[in-house]
Amino acid sequence: MEPADLRRDLDALDHRLRDSPKSGQDAVAAAAAFTVAVPSWALGTGGTRFGRFPGPGEPRDVFEKLDDCAQIHALTGATPTVSLHLPWDEPDDPQALLDKAKELGLTFDAVNSNTFQDAPGAAHSYKLGSFSNPDPGVRQQAVDHNLHVIEVGEALGSDALTVWLADGTNYPGQGNLRRGYERVLDSLHQVYAGLPDGWRLFTEHKPYEPAFYSTVVQDWGTSLMLAQALGDRASCLVDLGHHLPNTNVELVVARLLSAGKLGGFHFNDSKYGDDDLTAGSIKPYQLFLVFHELTLAAADEGDFRPAYMIDQSHNLKDPIEALLQTVDQLQQAAAKAALVDRDALAGYQDAGDVLMAERTLKDAYETDVRPAVAQARLEAGGAADPVAAFRASGYRARVADERAAGAYVPPQSL
Amino acid sequence: MEPADLRRDLDALDHRLRDSPKSGQDAVAAAAAFTVAVPSWALGTGGTRFGRFPGPGEPRDVFEKLDDCAQIHALTGATPTVSLHLPWDEPDDPQALLDKAKELGLTFDAVNSNTFQDAPGAAHSYKLGSFSNPDPGVRQQAVDHNLHVIEVGEALGSDALTVWLADGTNYPGQGNLRRGYERVLDSLHQVYAGLPDGWRLFTEHKPYEPAFYSTVVQDWGTSLMLAQALGDRASCLVDLGHHLPNTNVELVVARLLSAGKLGGFHFNDSKYGDDDLTAGSIKPYQLFLVFHELTLAAADEGDFRPAYMIDQSHNLKDPIEALLQTVDQLQQAAAKAALVDRDALAGYQDAGDVLMAERTLKDAYETDVRPAVAQARLEAGGAADPVAAFRASGYRARVADERAAGAYVPPQSL
Amino acid sequence: MEPADLRRDLDALDHRLRDSPKSGQDAVAAAAAFTVAVPSWALGTGGTRFGRFPGPGEPRDVFEKLDDCAQIHALTGATPTVSLHLPWDEPDDPQALLDKAKELGLTFDAVNSNTFQDAPGAAHSYKLGSFSNPDPGVRQQAVDHNLHVIEVGEALGSDALTVWLADGTNYPGQGNLRRGYERVLDSLHQVYAGLPDGWRLFTEHKPYEPAFYSTVVQDWGTSLMLAQALGDRASCLVDLGHHLPNTNVELVVARLLSAGKLGGFHFNDSKYGDDDLTAGSIKPYQLFLVFHELTLAAADEGDFRPAYMIDQSHNLKDPIEALLQTVDQLQQAAAKAALVDRDALAGYQDAGDVLMAERTLKDAYETDVRPAVAQARLEAGGAADPVAAFRASGYRARVADERAAGAYVPPQSL
Amino acid sequence: MEPADLRRDLDALDHRLRDSPKSGQDAVAAAAAFTVAVPSWALGTGGTRFGRFPGPGEPRDVFEKLDDCAQIHALTGATPTVSLHLPWDEPDDPQALLDKAKELGLTFDAVNSNTFQDAPGAAHSYKLGSFSNPDPGVRQQAVDHNLHVIEVGEALGSDALTVWLADGTNYPGQGNLRRGYERVLDSLHQVYAGLPDGWRLFTEHKPYEPAFYSTVVQDWGTSLMLAQALGDRASCLVDLGHHLPNTNVELVVARLLSAGKLGGFHFNDSKYGDDDLTAGSIKPYQLFLVFHELTLAAADEGDFRPAYMIDQSHNLKDPIEALLQTVDQLQQAAAKAALVDRDALAGYQDAGDVLMAERTLKDAYETDVRPAVAQARLEAGGAADPVAAFRASGYRARVADERAAGAYVPPQSL
Repeated sequence: MEPADLRRDLDALDHRLRDSPKSGQDAVAAAAAFTVAVPSWALGTGGTRFGRFPGPGEPRDVFEKLDDCAQIHALTGATPTVSLHLPWDEPDDPQALLDKAKELGLTFDAVNSNTFQDAPGAAHSYKLGSFSNPDPGVRQQAVDHNLHVIEVGEALGSDALTVWLADGTNYPGQGNLRRGYERVLDSLHQVYAGLPDGWRLFTEHKPYEPAFYSTVVQDWGTSLMLAQALGDRASCLVDLGHHLPNTNVELVVARLLSAGKLGGFHFNDSKYGDDDLTAGSIKPYQLFLVFHELTLAAADEGDFRPAYMIDQSHNLKDPIEALLQTVDQLQQAAAKAALVDRDALAGYQDAGDVLMAERTLKDAYETDVRPAVAQARLEAGGAADPVAAFRASGYRARVADERAAGAYVPPQSL
Repeated sequence: MEPADLRRDLDALDHRLRDSPKSGQDAVAAAAAFTVAVPSWALGTGGTRFGRFPGPGEPRDVFEKLDDCAQIHALTGATPTVSLHLPWDEPDDPQALLDKAKELGLTFDAVNSNTFQDAPGAAHSYKLGSFSNPDPGVRQQAVDHNLHVIEVGEALGSDALTVWLADGTNYPGQGNLRRGYERVLDSLHQVYAGLPDGWRLFTEHKPYEPAFYSTVVQDWGTSLMLAQALGDRASCLVDLGHHLPNTNVELVVARLLSAGKLGGFHFNDSKYGDDDLTAGSIKPYQLFLVFHELTLAAADEGDFRPAYMIDQSHNLKDPIEALLQTVDQLQQAAAKAALVDRDALAGYQDAGDVLMAERTLKDAYETDVRPAVAQARLEAGGAADPVAAFRASGYRARVADERAAGAYVPPQSL
Repeated sequence: MEPADLRRDLDALDHRLRDSPKSGQDAVAAAAAFTVAVPSWALGTGGTRFGRFPGPGEPRDVFEKLDDCAQIHALTGATPTVSLHLPWDEPDDPQALLDKAKELGLTFDAVNSNTFQDAPGAAHSYKLGSFSNPDPGVRQQAVDHNLHVIEVGEALGSDALTVWLADGTNYPGQGNLRRGYERVLDSLHQVYAGLPDGWRLFTEHKPYEPAFYSTVVQDWGTSLMLAQALGDRASCLVDLGHHLPNTNVELVVARLLSAGKLGGFHFNDSKYGDDDLTAGSIKPYQLFLVFHELTLAAADEGDFRPAYMIDQSHNLKDPIEALLQTVDQLQQAAAKAALVDRDALAGYQDAGDVLMAERTLKDAYETDVRPAVAQARLEAGGAADPVAAFRASGYRARVADERAAGAYVPPQSL
Repeated sequence: MEPADLRRDLDALDHRLRDSPKSGQDAVAAAAAFTVAVPSWALGTGGTRFGRFPGPGEPRDVFEKLDDCAQIHALTGATPTVSLHLPWDEPDDPQALLDKAKELGLTFDAVNSNTFQDAPGAAHSYKLGSFSNPDPGVRQQAVDHNLHVIEVGEALGSDALTVWLADGTNYPGQGNLRRGYERVLDSLHQVYAGLPDGWRLFTEHKPYEPAFYSTVVQDWGTSLMLAQALGDRASCLVDLGHHLPNTNVELVVARLLSAGKLGGFHFNDSKYGDDDLTAGSIKPYQLFLVFHELTLAAADEGDFRPAYMIDQSHNLKDPIEALLQTVDQLQQAAAKAALVDRDALAGYQDAGDVLMAERTLKDAYETDVRPAVAQARLEAGGAADPVAAFRASGYRARVADERAAGAYVPPQSL
């Protein structure tokens, strides 16, 4: 893109906003201020239970995943952090991984534990649950794993643990619904007690899958109960794909904000019961409305700092390209939310002018902010069109050659 | 039904349970112990926004509604209480209504307020909300109405207030999601402060309708937050039809039990987004699973006393007949839940025997308890087959004559 | 809006499209070409089963409704037709109504029958169904009503009949599912036989409401079966709000196109189980994707002419304003769909470039076409900002005075 | 179970039915007449995309799967057929497999093709679709695979092919929705042309997964269009778990019956978006209502012969035990459906007696038919309690020893 063309688009954006107190620069600033963690598990080709169709040049280990993350950060300027999953990306030598990250200009965001798969050689199986298992030995193993993840995270400079629990049941009667919750809370208390100073713990809910009848942390209500019981450093993570059909997700965000327990996000999108499509690919207006809540909250509260993470699995798209596109969609949502004339909105709301209140949001949403997010990326040293730049770079073909020899064992997405 | 036939069916039930620690008498006892409030608004023919098809003999006022309630109690022995809705059933003279109820052997359960319709002559409209309205005058009117409902309830011997709030918005931006919640909580604080000694307050959630984009008390999580903020006498009401698609309702019940905030139920059934079908008519197994949670809780806690209310609207069936059928379905669910071999169940759960744990529930569910609930009704002075007895009684034809002159203005169901 | 400002916005749009074969003029042309029928029932304040909150100046009869329709057409240039509902808007004197319409520059689109409410004085009740009723007398009455609607429609110059059937059941067992379908088909055959030359018949499906267990025409599959059985002049109407949760509506549109049976649309939007929100207010990207299918079909088929109708109920917004906003949203969707680079899209699809194929759609969607639709309206003699112009006109206050005396009996939306 | 006890339970059942034209023997006969195919893929432990927790003694090849199938048939007398999946259970030597089956008293039901996974060494990948792929080479490979499956099926004495297509897209724009359908139809025409005399072809729909934005055969409407276009020997398969939230599945069954295109079933159950739980474990009343439709159809049509197949994946339960339980649940549903007093039901339906019509179904459903299905199994040479008998047999422990050496590569369920 020619600089003059972008300049002209930005001028046009300012002109579009001529009747608004907001300017194109507000959109640029919001896009520039937005950063999000890339999950280590999103860099290989994902799959479904029906199969996986690998692509070329998949990273063979966590070091190569960092290389890919560095590409994304270089092209967007918006992903300086990486969210690790253990044991999928367990580093043999955390210091070596930390050195590698430093060299690439990356740091580590929240670490993720995994008690939904059996680790090779583990004494106990999670087939019938981890934190909620009736067997105290299983629960202890799961607690110990989480404490280990914290330890690794500490070595890597992380300061938060994300706990997504697959625990639940497939059939009525399989488990006692209340006992299961109590065991999970008790296990989490032990993990919480092991949090280093300054660390936070995020509990993440999901209505179903892999448990198909009941899930212990099935919705934000249960997640909230857990976070309330654990203490100030526990809060709730909202995965955009982890809701029952028709859920008003931005309302869930608003409620957790009211409860003082919004910990952060796992960004993605979903049309049905899945949770791994590109953020903004199905319900872009909903994504904007979520960012609007965040913008309102940031205006209200000085220290507003939720954790922003991507949680996607890329079955068809090139993972790096998909993540570049995802960051762009998130930046667009942030930029559009920044264009909402919040004073006018509040005025219409108080006056009961339903149509104009709605339209105030829509006016921001219908604005074309792509020039603003391009500008924000350029200012951060990235590319106006990251996907095009990535394709032009030849990176994928290069690593496809380098990595051809290795066998890739795909993790699954959260 | 001949007594000898029923006796033989009951003996057969005992024989079916020969390998269980439970007996037919457990089913009879559970059915006999179950009582449920009949809502005053369920006695006229209901309707949808598309129309109403009235039936003969609808009650013209709250006194005639009590007459109908007395019929239901006489035939089931299970509905000694009535749940009033104001202003639909506002008595001009509460003492006269109380006298009438006493005469009929009825008392008053939770009273229900209504801020989702405009009262004739009211100073303010609820078009844009009641407790959540930006206008403090509207909120005050809504609070005052609730305090009035409490006052009437007190005069009638009630001891609980049910607040179902229609408040919400139809469009993104119409209202501030967090401010709306804060205003509702503030209004509820004022109502809560007006509760007489010994009274309870129930908050009831609903995902949508009449608000079509966001509802303030949209799910059990928000209802819980309200009940927690209000105090010990506030708890949550679960309406079986007020959940998003695929919600595991028995899990919601279990969570509210864990939180110590399960206040009670509005029983009905639903296949889609409606909430007024006969309890057990669509998902009878779910109804059983809810009662199983209640049975477990009652076994754990000595003073377990949730409020049981029916909340249905009868568009096609004769309302009295539909309520008789409803009570039967609820009694069957209670009786089946009492047949669950809870010790065996707990053993299978702890042992990880998924199939046998599930089957332990199913064994109770698949048992034919109709003879047991018939016996319970007979012992309570009711009828083995209440619908048949009602039809044989000629009551409907009689009141159809008596009430023909009156105009019936139908309320709508909650 | 100053003409110079709009000109500058349009130039900016052309500049944004500098790398595309499409231009701002394509968006203007698509918006200008789009027209949609306004339903007579949308001009009064709507409501839910819980209540209705009327606004000022509601039309008291069908003549005043036409006055309101004329306002909408004057401000948008896009609504030259009106879709009548009988008996709600039954004209005593069709010729007088036709004269009035002509005077206002309006004509009549598809006429709508109503067999979901009992007409005063009718011999039979539709409580248990109309076309599907086991009683042949009821079915005949419903057929006769539809034939009457056709007759009125013919007098008014209409050329299509829309049949939305509320028929269904509330409980398992209430009706025989196959017999119900057969009776509906048989009744429709009789109506179809009464279609004048050149007329079309649209069958409209809906999953539930007012029937809460089963609906005879519950989905597009059944609607298709009916249209296939009836003949060439029968086709299927897609109401955007009449789908089960998570339905891919644009896919339904594509299938009906493949079957040669896409008759037209009832535009609105919905988040839950409702069907009356402003088109584009909840899922604007879905609306765009629907228009993309229509654009593809129009490019494939010369004589592509589906019927476009709005079907909304305005509970909170001023009905005229809401319809102006609706037309704007539809025009935006049409304009954006026209900006899709269909050749590039097809190329990416054939090459398996998932990301770029998706992005080709998104590029069109993310374009700000508001200047283009403003231009289209101005060229058609309308207003750049119809809502602002309407408010400035003082029309509502004027008719509020004129119509104050009349009592408005609200119809309900389809 | 003692014979005298069962006799007494059966007598009690007859007594319960004393006012009905049906008898316990009707239930026994219906259970005895019901047979269902066991799918070869259901005999190993299943899993989700998050992991698999294998159990002991999983069959290592298709021969061992037949051994397991024979166990199920021996204990139920209801599963004389096996439904094979290729290539998962591709026999090297079909004749040897046929011999083995004969020896075990088994035959082969419909064969299943698989174009949702890449076969090792295949020339083309199905990553972007099989029958719908823009590349004709991929489509040809998929057609050839289906023709090969038919060939193998013919060698094994099968007479039907089930085609479940995973084809679809993950993102708007990824594919042309209409072209995809056309390619699938064209491919199916080629497969259909290869059907041997007497063979049938079943098309199976599914709303999503593994495609997460659009699926080509997404619902029964599309499945019907395909079956109509193919010809008389094509019909539609209904998988009980393949429906959008809140779908009335028995209504889908009724519609396909009306269209003359109900081919058969894949039995399972589901609470959310999954499709592999034990039939009857979540919505047993729905299962009964489906069987009621089948019973009505069988009464209407002499040659009614849909294909009954189980399609489940057993992640937690022992697969053989789960299938024994499944057969029992299906037999119970068949037996209860046989107890519906269809004449009384039709009478109430015609008379508009909603409550009694519903109750006529419920009366059958609430009847305890477990003694009848136990009797049916005993008469067929099976066990009164198949799970108990299986546990007592020691079969699992025995095969766990025998099969310990082998590595099991788990297939995934359809």
